[in-house]
Amino acid sequence: MRNANRQWVLERFPEGIPAETDWRLVESPVPEPGDREMLVQSLYLSVDPYMRGRISPAKNYAKGVDIGEVMTGSGVGEVVRSNHPDFEPGDIVESFQFGWQDFAILPAEGTRKVDPSLGPIHSALSYLGMPGLSAYFALLDIGQPKPGDTVAISAASGAVGQIAGQIAKIKGCRAVAIASSDEKLAWCRELGYDAGINYKTAPDLTASVAEACPNGVDVFFDNTAGPIHDAVMQNLALKARVIVCGTVALADKFGQPDIGPRSLRQILVARARVEGFLIFDFQDRYEAAREQIAAWHAEGKIRHREDIAEGLEQTPAAFLKLLRSENFGKQLVKV
Amino acid sequence: MRNANRQWVLERFPEGIPAETDWRLVESPVPEPGDREMLVQSLYLSVDPYMRGRISPAKNYAKGVDIGEVMTGSGVGEVVRSNHPDFEPGDIVESFQFGWQDFAILPAEGTRKVDPSLGPIHSALSYLGMPGLSAYFALLDIGQPKPGDTVAISAASGAVGQIAGQIAKIKGCRAVAIASSDEKLAWCRELGYDAGINYKTAPDLTASVAEACPNGVDVFFDNTAGPIHDAVMQNLALKARVIVCGTVALADKFGQPDIGPRSLRQILVARARVEGFLIFDFQDRYEAAREQIAAWHAEGKIRHREDIAEGLEQTPAAFLKLLRSENFGKQLVKV
Repeated sequence: MRNANRQWVLERFPEGIPAETDWRLVESPVPEPGDREMLVQSLYLSVDPYMRGRISPAKNYAKGVDIGEVMTGSGVGEVVRSNHPDFEPGDIVESFQFGWQDFAILPAEGTRKVDPSLGPIHSALSYLGMPGLSAYFALLDIGQPKPGDTVAISAASGAVGQIAGQIAKIKGCRAVAIASSDEKLAWCRELGYDAGINYKTAPDLTASVAEACPNGVDVFFDNTAGPIHDAVMQNLALKARVIVCGTVALADKFGQPDIGPRSLRQILVARARVEGFLIFDFQDRYEAAREQIAAWHAEGKIRHREDIAEGLEQTPAAFLKLLRSENFGKQLVKV
Repeated sequence: MRNANRQWVLERFPEGIPAETDWRLVESPVPEPGDREMLVQSLYLSVDPYMRGRISPAKNYAKGVDIGEVMTGSGVGEVVRSNHPDFEPGDIVESFQFGWQDFAILPAEGTRKVDPSLGPIHSALSYLGMPGLSAYFALLDIGQPKPGDTVAISAASGAVGQIAGQIAKIKGCRAVAIASSDEKLAWCRELGYDAGINYKTAPDLTASVAEACPNGVDVFFDNTAGPIHDAVMQNLALKARVIVCGTVALADKFGQPDIGPRSLRQILVARARVEGFLIFDFQDRYEAAREQIAAWHAEGKIRHREDIAEGLEQTPAAFLKLLRSENFGKQLVKV
């Protein structure tokens, strides 16, 4: 065990796309857990697009990170010391409150034991964790896909998109991938997506969506906002459902207005429903969903891919890679 | 009875806000009804914001009017001659397919007998017709208001808004009017609205909405799009419902992109639902809703106000008045 705790603290609120220098790596002694707390050593950290919103003074759904605080984030780690009767040293646990650091002091609340028999422990941050659960609830509860529906998914090979596309196929839908490279689209095809659009090379994205979705888009699983959103909104089928799950394309605009073409006419004409999604609203149902995803995985119906950076010192770089769509699959950091 | 049929035909597709010269008044002989058709003399014509979409080559939910065709629109008239067993001369009827003309040839389908005992016959174009039914279904089915909810309504004294505000009050909500003049807001107060915002004089519309809706907006009944929409979207309560019922503020932009601040972050953060509304989706339930509105009216819970122009020759002017928010209450033309 390390005898010091390295921590990435926020140095400033970035304007636009963050830079590695917006965080600073500091070292402090390994902390002691208080009553009913535990000391956990991090094994894997997750970096996710939502974190852009946490380092902005703009209003958000959760409190942001202040200057000088340890950067927020979920992680999987091993309990080193425990003052709580439900946890003991050696337990593998997952928490949303881990933070970018070697050691975290965690309360029992919000800390979940990971069952290593379900898959590699880092899958608790991937298809068996927040991204997989987001894909599941956002697609099924908000998107309400029916067999035969066309489901278009942005960031289709990403942590959420790759699972959403496969659930769409399980539900009998036609899944259309929108991603940033032909390599990612080839992987989407392997996963079962029926068609793919490379938004970086498409000369006319609206026309490409129309071509890939000749009957219009019944369910739009939007992980990006921005120009992909605009193009799909021009191609809504009657009574389309649009899931606003992520806005990674706005990562350079946090706290600023997002100016562009609006879609109120398209929403009215299609009688579409555009709905915001946040995973925390579904906490009561996490366990059942996790079991379903694990079962599909065991049956070979859900595959997944991770992009794993090595070392805590790589955490900001891994996060920035994600914001630039340079990752391929769920981005993790192995500490 | 007149011995000629005056008709307003479309002269050109307007760019931006239409002008009276975009239509031309022509005269032709009074037509003869064919088999199972009837000849109806117009008594009242309705002008409505949706008509802006019908004189644009842009994609819409219904076929538009072509150059040289009689302008579309609903009306109330008296049957003059009938070749259909269900209708006889003297019947007062309402139709969506009337058009801006003295006489219409109407089929039985889509033509409804008006019961004069329910109210003045022109109310079939007002609170007992499309505007009243739109307010009813859009608010109750899409908005799903709960007692105590804050319901903000744009074009609050207009044909749809005035009824929506009163239904919101019947359902135990707090109703907030957004309108274009203090005179209209005073009338909204008389109807029972709890607060009002004059969007033409508010120095900071977003701040005015925040002040009038201190707990945020639970239901936004949007009849306008544009800057009012933008201001309300900055003030959504958690799980807000936004009804996209009309886009009159975009009347000068038909067929062009509507550029401005988008609200995807607001939708995500509030987990809001933004949904397009079109009255035709609720045809099966018109009669029950009409009875309910008539009953509320009889109980004194629904009041209404019309703005009636005199003479068929005033029809384009009445429509343009509506697009400029210069009408006060449901805009009609008495032929």
